[in-house]
Amino acid sequence: MLKVNVKASESYDILIESGLLAKTGEIINSLVKSKRIAIVTDDIVDVLYGDVVVESLKCNGFDVCKYVFPNGEHSKCSDNLNNIYDFLCENSITRTDSIIALGGGVVGDITGYASATYLRGVDYIQIPTTLLAQVDSSVGGKTAIDIPAGKNLVGAFKQPKCVICDIDTLKTLKRETFSDGMAEVIKYGMIRQKELFDILASHNMDTIWEVIQDVVFRCVSIKRDVVQNDEFDKGERMILNFGHTLGHAVEGYHHYETYTHGSAVAIGMCLITEKALAYGIGSQSMLNNLIECIKNYELPTSVPVQLKDLIPFCLADKKRESNNINIILCEDIGKCMVKKMPITDFYSFMGIS
Amino acid sequence: MLKVNVKASESYDILIESGLLAKTGEIINSLVKSKRIAIVTDDIVDVLYGDVVVESLKCNGFDVCKYVFPNGEHSKCSDNLNNIYDFLCENSITRTDSIIALGGGVVGDITGYASATYLRGVDYIQIPTTLLAQVDSSVGGKTAIDIPAGKNLVGAFKQPKCVICDIDTLKTLKRETFSDGMAEVIKYGMIRQKELFDILASHNMDTIWEVIQDVVFRCVSIKRDVVQNDEFDKGERMILNFGHTLGHAVEGYHHYETYTHGSAVAIGMCLITEKALAYGIGSQSMLNNLIECIKNYELPTSVPVQLKDLIPFCLADKKRESNNINIILCEDIGKCMVKKMPITDFYSFMGIS
Repeated sequence: MLKVNVKASESYDILIESGLLAKTGEIINSLVKSKRIAIVTDDIVDVLYGDVVVESLKCNGFDVCKYVFPNGEHSKCSDNLNNIYDFLCENSITRTDSIIALGGGVVGDITGYASATYLRGVDYIQIPTTLLAQVDSSVGGKTAIDIPAGKNLVGAFKQPKCVICDIDTLKTLKRETFSDGMAEVIKYGMIRQKELFDILASHNMDTIWEVIQDVVFRCVSIKRDVVQNDEFDKGERMILNFGHTLGHAVEGYHHYETYTHGSAVAIGMCLITEKALAYGIGSQSMLNNLIECIKNYELPTSVPVQLKDLIPFCLADKKRESNNINIILCEDIGKCMVKKMPITDFYSFMGIS
Repeated sequence: MLKVNVKASESYDILIESGLLAKTGEIINSLVKSKRIAIVTDDIVDVLYGDVVVESLKCNGFDVCKYVFPNGEHSKCSDNLNNIYDFLCENSITRTDSIIALGGGVVGDITGYASATYLRGVDYIQIPTTLLAQVDSSVGGKTAIDIPAGKNLVGAFKQPKCVICDIDTLKTLKRETFSDGMAEVIKYGMIRQKELFDILASHNMDTIWEVIQDVVFRCVSIKRDVVQNDEFDKGERMILNFGHTLGHAVEGYHHYETYTHGSAVAIGMCLITEKALAYGIGSQSMLNNLIECIKNYELPTSVPVQLKDLIPFCLADKKRESNNINIILCEDIGKCMVKKMPITDFYSFMGIS
């Protein structure tokens, strides 16, 4: 079993291995205060993995209740959050009990947020079942819901007691969902580790399975390093946003319908790297390598939208600071920088006069 | 000007003086990152104090927007919270901007919670305008909203950048609203400071004005001391709950309609002290002094409800830990203890077989 320890305001382990779901009860036994636990999951994940997790918990003496909501980003909303609160109340979950988030990013984000705010915070355990959730949303303590004005605009920092990444769950993902997660994996290579990027560049959607445990471990370790230096997202952590300002804009412009998060981030990474090149940062060969690697994982590298139409969505980015915007630029593969620029300069950086 | 410094995860000052509202802009000038600020208040407070605060901010170069919602506990809900988020988005409030909570406990709690969660946290300033808010809810960083299952069941810890207590605002309170706040004031005397209790016992609703600034200062200082030792409510802070487990039950039993929070806490303090006496903790003279003092401030000391009907509401208390409940008992005026007992023992403690 691979283990990454995160030293945040509360220290916790991220465990990575095949077959971990069946060991859930045994793993969390020593980590939680009471034997009462609530599982929050979605209907697709529940059918696949609900039973094995419940079984493992019951075998270890846990008293389990379970809340299942419809799969999809539309469930990451205030209404569903209120339903989760009601469920926790109805089942008398108290401050010493715990919550398990079993599923992908949506489940992790909303369940983490519910755990951060219900009774002003109860312990929770992340069991991410998608690649995106394993390498990204389950690490770092960011939790959130969407509101009508935008994605993740409401949230909290809440570190889990433990993150359980069962690599086997990745095998049941739809091809495009796996691909979606690969965009973030490529991002980690770009911003922090040439070695990881080289592994990715030498594989593709069909061969990456051979090294997936190592890849997840590398991504989680990189995110851990970045997050540990900047738990509350005041500086270095911004580099994790590489490709995201434009990515979010692509998602937003299409009402979060046409492009998955990963596809949008893939496009965002290409776009920002292209603009950085015109600005004198990076190189043509780096851009070519990035585009080629993204194509290996069946992700898009451009979008049929005029840049000027994306700008309003960039300006609504959470990373904006009053009249400045922070953008992340790669100077070389594995090396990036945060560039703060006035909104006015951002227009010209994007080549819009 | 009296000043109480709170050393929490972020250090901040609580300022207490007459006429502070007109100095809002000048006070917060050096505390906030940008000149953009959103005020959240209710319709009653807005009419009384909206203009003076906006004026002071504008004179100090702030760009101000204001959100006003209907006065009352019913506004401390998820719907109003969502409206506040929408307002903040529409007015492009970013992470470097700030929010002011101008009003009583409802305004402070929901605005603090919005500040804690909007964009995962923006700075906020508390300007409490009721006695209850000045001595209690504005100190300690607890923020919350109500959900159908109960009051304050969803919330976050969020320390303000500054708390501005303008004593003059207490003069416009309705007599029963002022009285409502006095219950918490008496609580501080009971749990921590005989000197304060003696001041209160020697005054009444009409004469307490002579010493109100000192009284607010003492209460805020006591709460500061307790909160500083236990920012995240894991232990000592529970003593602030004296009278509250039964108080919340009284409120809940009457659907939060018949009794104000202060009235319910006053009843709760009398009830628990009476039961403690039967249990061998405290003394008859202490109970008599408490009842007399509470009557000085026109608050009730008993409730025409059978105790067994209050128990289910006690068990829904946030302070409950799985099968145990923590209750706060005064051994003497100014001295209290936390007693953790199994739910089963709580029934017999309450004299219910």
